[in-house]
Amino acid sequence: MVVHNETSTGVTSRVPAIRAAIDATGHDALLLVDTISSLASIEYRHDAWGVDVTVAGSQKGLMLPPGLSFNALSERALVAARTSTLPRSYWDWAPILAANRKGFWPYTPATNLLYGLDAALDRLESEGLENVWRRHARHAAATRLAVQGWGLEVLAADPREYSASLTAVLVPHGVDADAVRRIILERYDMSLGTGLGKLAGRVFRIGHLGDFNDLMLAGTLAGVQMGLRLAGVDVPATGLAQALARLEWDD
Amino acid sequence: MVVHNETSTGVTSRVPAIRAAIDATGHDALLLVDTISSLASIEYRHDAWGVDVTVAGSQKGLMLPPGLSFNALSERALVAARTSTLPRSYWDWAPILAANRKGFWPYTPATNLLYGLDAALDRLESEGLENVWRRHARHAAATRLAVQGWGLEVLAADPREYSASLTAVLVPHGVDADAVRRIILERYDMSLGTGLGKLAGRVFRIGHLGDFNDLMLAGTLAGVQMGLRLAGVDVPATGLAQALARLEWDD
Amino acid sequence: MVVHNETSTGVTSRVPAIRAAIDATGHDALLLVDTISSLASIEYRHDAWGVDVTVAGSQKGLMLPPGLSFNALSERALVAARTSTLPRSYWDWAPILAANRKGFWPYTPATNLLYGLDAALDRLESEGLENVWRRHARHAAATRLAVQGWGLEVLAADPREYSASLTAVLVPHGVDADAVRRIILERYDMSLGTGLGKLAGRVFRIGHLGDFNDLMLAGTLAGVQMGLRLAGVDVPATGLAQALARLEWDD
Amino acid sequence: MVVHNETSTGVTSRVPAIRAAIDATGHDALLLVDTISSLASIEYRHDAWGVDVTVAGSQKGLMLPPGLSFNALSERALVAARTSTLPRSYWDWAPILAANRKGFWPYTPATNLLYGLDAALDRLESEGLENVWRRHARHAAATRLAVQGWGLEVLAADPREYSASLTAVLVPHGVDADAVRRIILERYDMSLGTGLGKLAGRVFRIGHLGDFNDLMLAGTLAGVQMGLRLAGVDVPATGLAQALARLEWDD
Repeated sequence: MVVHNETSTGVTSRVPAIRAAIDATGHDALLLVDTISSLASIEYRHDAWGVDVTVAGSQKGLMLPPGLSFNALSERALVAARTSTLPRSYWDWAPILAANRKGFWPYTPATNLLYGLDAALDRLESEGLENVWRRHARHAAATRLAVQGWGLEVLAADPREYSASLTAVLVPHGVDADAVRRIILERYDMSLGTGLGKLAGRVFRIGHLGDFNDLMLAGTLAGVQMGLRLAGVDVPATGLAQALARLEWDD
Repeated sequence: MVVHNETSTGVTSRVPAIRAAIDATGHDALLLVDTISSLASIEYRHDAWGVDVTVAGSQKGLMLPPGLSFNALSERALVAARTSTLPRSYWDWAPILAANRKGFWPYTPATNLLYGLDAALDRLESEGLENVWRRHARHAAATRLAVQGWGLEVLAADPREYSASLTAVLVPHGVDADAVRRIILERYDMSLGTGLGKLAGRVFRIGHLGDFNDLMLAGTLAGVQMGLRLAGVDVPATGLAQALARLEWDD
Repeated sequence: MVVHNETSTGVTSRVPAIRAAIDATGHDALLLVDTISSLASIEYRHDAWGVDVTVAGSQKGLMLPPGLSFNALSERALVAARTSTLPRSYWDWAPILAANRKGFWPYTPATNLLYGLDAALDRLESEGLENVWRRHARHAAATRLAVQGWGLEVLAADPREYSASLTAVLVPHGVDADAVRRIILERYDMSLGTGLGKLAGRVFRIGHLGDFNDLMLAGTLAGVQMGLRLAGVDVPATGLAQALARLEWDD
Repeated sequence: MVVHNETSTGVTSRVPAIRAAIDATGHDALLLVDTISSLASIEYRHDAWGVDVTVAGSQKGLMLPPGLSFNALSERALVAARTSTLPRSYWDWAPILAANRKGFWPYTPATNLLYGLDAALDRLESEGLENVWRRHARHAAATRLAVQGWGLEVLAADPREYSASLTAVLVPHGVDADAVRRIILERYDMSLGTGLGKLAGRVFRIGHLGDFNDLMLAGTLAGVQMGLRLAGVDVPATGLAQALARLEWDD
């Protein structure tokens, strides 16, 4: 079981490498991937990457309220489900698959969200999924340039695993990341993600996924830059300037 | 008849001075003021300033779709309307005032917009009208600092008449302001106002009225700065930096 | 100037007959028709009937909130407008026609209502305008059968002029129509139209236009029947029964 | 485990009697009640009736889209959950209760539905919960009078268990209930519930729960009456007439 995009740290797993590692061992383990905060924001390929179960949700890259979750299943996952003796009821795929074939759902469906999904998919298809991925990758790159310009560090250590959905930023020692977040919320009405677990107080997280464009990112980074300074972290204006220089060119 | 805030140029009339000038002549002319783009964004006082007729609309500072217009009337305006022999029907105040007294409107009212108005007034009252004015004045000051930082000129010549709702910016000679606007619309999905009449091609206008906060302004100014550079106007990053320095402090 | 559908009485003017009468005199008067409560509910043909100016609104058959008004103009009306010396400004067609040609409007347009109009026209076209007219004619016929079954009278005297948008019903002498309306509003949360001018207290009006179907009409007529009885008008259940008998067959 | 209101049959369980029966045996079994289609439509008292776990949903009496589910828990249920060794994760109350205490939810909450719930509860409280129950009981009584007038039978056998949320109606032998439903859907755009399991083709179900008033019921019953006749079931108009006679008086 792998989280494709780790929301609390801003790290994106290299799923194909994980699949290859499993295959190399000759083990027949199923590969399950959580794409809640990556689907429709970061390149992801259920079939091509040999994933057995993909779990996704409506409330991030699909730009909808929370309330829908999705599973994509490989043939092997279906076989495993059919032959498994684990007790199950609500989470059982069999009645769902049977109903889906006729365009239905075995329980009361969230019809209003399905209408929203229809509109969201229209938007994604009209932009083109590869363009959507490229847009988020570009925003993530510009965000990292801002962080670098501020003299701060991105939490993710391996550039191959930088997240295109969000960036977790380490604050200097002696600074409380939650105090920075509070100032930015109060002064600029912008809510940044908090550090979780052992990262509490050490990082704040900038989201740049879903329905997001260049000027939203510019406003977001301006808010972070001003908030850091108000919190006593004397970051230079170079941060935002470097990000904007990146946003001036398209690809 | 005076326009309080001239939307095409970003100039705000000094209404009390105009009233005083009329009074100084001893003439009994009525003073009519159009506040379409100033009401609930720029300080305005119908009674204290001795205005006879104020005309306002729903679609700017009141943060609603277009569709409602408002008149505030002085006692003298009412007397003039009663004694005037000018023919009138739809624009006649008498049936409206009579119906209003009972909470009604003589014709089919736009009830959905009235519900919206109720919500908009709640928001304005909860922020406090003086705070709303201050917010827009601060955004306008930050915008002018950006313009100055870019080495460009604000169209309004007299600092007492700078508009807090919008800022018209002169582009350097040889640059087509509409080309700048087009680039910004295409690249950053932001629509700036065009120059009208003899200002066509010479100015673009940045709106900062209504439901607007610091980070929206930061995103807006970032878009203008990037767009100018993409259009070949080599403005320095100082523009946005000066605006943000202003937005770091509150008053 | 003719009102196509007289909302206060439930009478529909025979516009072609009026046109023919004008033509018969050889007079070159323009024919102006108000279709506020008939457009997209009752058959109407601007060109075929030789109308010069048609006035319509968004808030009835077009199923939108109030806020848009429409004019259809004949060639003769355009010539008259061009050659007339009557002073005009806001109501002047010339700048509107010039802007319309390029898909614009000379003043701030109510864009949100235009999106609504787009959806409303899709619905009307998908049902088919002739079917829409037929639907309302059928509902009006069923309503009159109910009125007859109750032993009451429809206000409109000439069957050729029965309105398909609404039906005005005369209450028996000694009964206050507004008391009936009040009871129905309080008990059944349904608001009927009041009698206007000399019809005050003598009639109530049942609307059956716009987005309306058989069961809404059934509920409406049930509410009127119960309300009349509660108001002391001992109408028989035959009224609703006759209306339903009509709604059982389609055409 | 008891379903308070059985949606497929229109039968309401007498929960206090079930509680008494359990208590009479001296058994310490927990009592779990599903109130999906009864909450806020039919009298229900979690504490007074000694229920241990109540399960409810947003999409019926609470008048919201599907997407929220609620549990009310007795002290004994909490103890059982704490001491039980059954494996659980998503359905575990402990983290939810801990987060709820601070006004939060351990996972991504459906915030938009929570705003809707706030509005729905305002409406229910403004009508008064006992009045809401009385309204639905009255509509159910009127519906049964219609069924009786048509010469048909209500599926529920015991009058103490008639549902106030919905009424399942048996069609005469030789009639296909689904054919009746199809005609009503096609002709009158009204969707009735189908018979499930061994009731397939034998019953249709009339819902009268949630945001529902007298004239909606009148329209509904008119549609059923007309649809039955169109389907060849020659029911008399007495059905609707008897229902309306009931709706004429308030209590």
